[in-house]
Amino acid sequence: MKKIDEPRLRDIVGERNIKTDPSDLYIYGSDSSVHHAMPWAVVKPETILQVQRIMKYANEELIPVIARGGGSGMCGQTVPVQGGIILDMKGMNKILEINLEDVYCRVEPGVIDDDLNLALKQYGVFYPPTPASSRIATIGGEIANNASGVRSVKYGATRDAVLGMKVVLPDGELVSLGAHTRVEASGYQLHKLMVGSEGTLGVVVEAILSFVPIPEFRCMGVANFDSLNDAGHAIGSIMASGAIPSMLELVDSVAIKAVNKTMDLGLKEVAAALIFEADGMVKEAVDYEINKMKKICEKHNGQDIHASYDPKEREKIFMGRKKLFPALSKYDDNLASTALADDMAVPYSKMAEMAGKIHEIARENNIVMTAYGHCGSGCMHTKILMDTKRKDQWDSAKKAITQVYEYVRSVNGTTSAEHGIGLSKAESFKIEKADSLGLLTSIKKALDPNNILNPGKLMQAPENWITATNLRYSVNS
Amino acid sequence: MKKIDEPRLRDIVGERNIKTDPSDLYIYGSDSSVHHAMPWAVVKPETILQVQRIMKYANEELIPVIARGGGSGMCGQTVPVQGGIILDMKGMNKILEINLEDVYCRVEPGVIDDDLNLALKQYGVFYPPTPASSRIATIGGEIANNASGVRSVKYGATRDAVLGMKVVLPDGELVSLGAHTRVEASGYQLHKLMVGSEGTLGVVVEAILSFVPIPEFRCMGVANFDSLNDAGHAIGSIMASGAIPSMLELVDSVAIKAVNKTMDLGLKEVAAALIFEADGMVKEAVDYEINKMKKICEKHNGQDIHASYDPKEREKIFMGRKKLFPALSKYDDNLASTALADDMAVPYSKMAEMAGKIHEIARENNIVMTAYGHCGSGCMHTKILMDTKRKDQWDSAKKAITQVYEYVRSVNGTTSAEHGIGLSKAESFKIEKADSLGLLTSIKKALDPNNILNPGKLMQAPENWITATNLRYSVNS
Repeated sequence: MKKIDEPRLRDIVGERNIKTDPSDLYIYGSDSSVHHAMPWAVVKPETILQVQRIMKYANEELIPVIARGGGSGMCGQTVPVQGGIILDMKGMNKILEINLEDVYCRVEPGVIDDDLNLALKQYGVFYPPTPASSRIATIGGEIANNASGVRSVKYGATRDAVLGMKVVLPDGELVSLGAHTRVEASGYQLHKLMVGSEGTLGVVVEAILSFVPIPEFRCMGVANFDSLNDAGHAIGSIMASGAIPSMLELVDSVAIKAVNKTMDLGLKEVAAALIFEADGMVKEAVDYEINKMKKICEKHNGQDIHASYDPKEREKIFMGRKKLFPALSKYDDNLASTALADDMAVPYSKMAEMAGKIHEIARENNIVMTAYGHCGSGCMHTKILMDTKRKDQWDSAKKAITQVYEYVRSVNGTTSAEHGIGLSKAESFKIEKADSLGLLTSIKKALDPNNILNPGKLMQAPENWITATNLRYSVNS
Repeated sequence: MKKIDEPRLRDIVGERNIKTDPSDLYIYGSDSSVHHAMPWAVVKPETILQVQRIMKYANEELIPVIARGGGSGMCGQTVPVQGGIILDMKGMNKILEINLEDVYCRVEPGVIDDDLNLALKQYGVFYPPTPASSRIATIGGEIANNASGVRSVKYGATRDAVLGMKVVLPDGELVSLGAHTRVEASGYQLHKLMVGSEGTLGVVVEAILSFVPIPEFRCMGVANFDSLNDAGHAIGSIMASGAIPSMLELVDSVAIKAVNKTMDLGLKEVAAALIFEADGMVKEAVDYEINKMKKICEKHNGQDIHASYDPKEREKIFMGRKKLFPALSKYDDNLASTALADDMAVPYSKMAEMAGKIHEIARENNIVMTAYGHCGSGCMHTKILMDTKRKDQWDSAKKAITQVYEYVRSVNGTTSAEHGIGLSKAESFKIEKADSLGLLTSIKKALDPNNILNPGKLMQAPENWITATNLRYSVNS
């Protein structure tokens, strides 16, 4: 571990914005993944200039720098596996401009997604990429991982909403990328490259984002299925039909059980349920989409199909999905919900097979896995529920996710749809992108020659993370 | 000029697919821009392997390679300013797959845009980025320039439709980028970087594209304005209102005169006209958008406002815009229509000012300029009509476009919205992107260390192209 020049950092960000106490460092050593590693210091810049000065220092001294937002990353993106400085970007949380005439806003990276949408709401517009973690996720973190959520099926992911940005490069230089306009064809679109680069190419210090009108009408529907396979085929048919859902979510039996167990929702314990939504400015158009989706669900043996425009009814329908994530942690007191192979994407026609595959692999490996997610955008989530104290459960989990990813790649799917690669998914990522890893590495070298920005992630991450990195659980051997 | 190893190239692509006759080379020395330069050879590969072998040879011998599609580039993107081999990609023109279940198609780069849309039409879907040159523009060329057109305001530009691609790198290596799925967060999204890189980073040999359903209903409207300023403000208000036009086009008095002169359309010779369109699966939703736009046009003193769902009526309304490009060449027998500062983008609120600025600058410099374009997506086109034989007209043109770009940059606009940078726009591009030119150069070096892919373009292009490159016009001194 390198010696950090605390006085120099204090001089840059001030006494109150630097943490070196081990108890603080411990907290910043993990995110929402299974990984943990101790940083050397946590520094909280409040201005672009401070970020530039920190980077200049780190680059001179070859100290790793890991920009961190809300810490909601699921695969270890902000875990400092090689130590270094955690840049706590939450200190830069100003909404700089909401430009209604030109239809964009400018924000600092530490702005919380929900706070941005609260500010936009008063003007009748919203920022659509919003992931499920929007209560804590920052815009900067969402950009770093190309985050998306329930509405990306209609409105796109973070990359689609980013028009431009200001980025501090490893050497402290500040560059402006992209534009303030809707279309741009002026040279390399590096702002799109920065989206999803997981803090390995530059530190985003400002973003120009587009927004869209809040629709006048929203209608949400639900359909139950006795077969996970039928539900999966319904998803494929809906998307192939040209329907435009503003949401199309799958929840399987495990997920439904988990929710019933923790909340008194009395969800019918079927094999799977589809939650679908359409929105728009004209009711007839929303009806059109909803009816189209209802019919397709019927055709695939959906039951108890109903839909509603009523906010209370919609809230009730969605509640199960909304509470799924916390509920999974309570599925079994002895089992923790871990995000491992948790957000793969497959072509629509493989949704049914993918969901079945997850349950089959869970059975084979004696662990509990659930299939759910934003299937309308091709994303299938899983969580692995396991006893994290038991070494053998980790081995089973490792075996299971290897099988999941083998299947995903075999059907032209991709390792991560929304959560990024970080550490947990590096093994599959490297196999999937084998032919372009050299290219990725040359890009990384070109932008970060000293490899100080979030080193040891993506193509640099170790194949076998269970043995190569620390887990934030104590495992009995 | 380097000696080309003709036997080796013949061995790769066969006798009939290589051209070295000066008369042939001359034709391939220009595109739709004002520039001209002689290539050393024109080679027409028909397979990925042939492209790989050509690149390997060129990289060993340090011979420039310029991939070329339909030659509809407006700013010299495919003009071989440093000589070398023109890769005529039209030899790779197969539609490889139309996958309706997974909602994507796979195509070779030489496929003509109109041919792809003709093939998609039978399935009730279309590929939306389509530029005005779709009759000759290839998918590969559209990708190289992030092309877009009249419908990009609703459906996005090429970058938005590209899910993945296969690319041959300068050393002949083949890499797959992107995915077959709708969302992806797996590492650097290099396929998005390739879009708009104007053939300087790699040769696209296959593309995975998304498509969308052909709407059941289309309604097109038109509004005349006595003041260009009013028309410009109408555009800004429409886009700020959250309306979703599928087309929003401006044509000014010069454009209208040009069309009336060449065709018997009897368009009313007003200061400006707006053509607007909405589309969708539900008539009520289309009505909603059209009425919204009509009202805004009225509010801004629009006249003769009418709209129609009837294909014949729509054809009549759009004919003027459609024939504008050829018509401008016939505006005055002594004046040629040149694409110089021809596709800048400005924020919506500056549309009116931008249009006025163009006319003001034209007057100042004694040349004829027209303001038109896909203003709904922020793009404002101009053409400069001038006597290309007269040196002084070129000087005036140069002065005019310098003033245009100064204005564009002063209002947070960007140099190119859809046509790319090539040679003609390098001067403004370099000023606009001054702070990131180093970054662009390092990316170029990382991917093309020997600088053989379309050298001398973008950040490498000369500031003063009039003197630094050959014009395809003979200018009297």
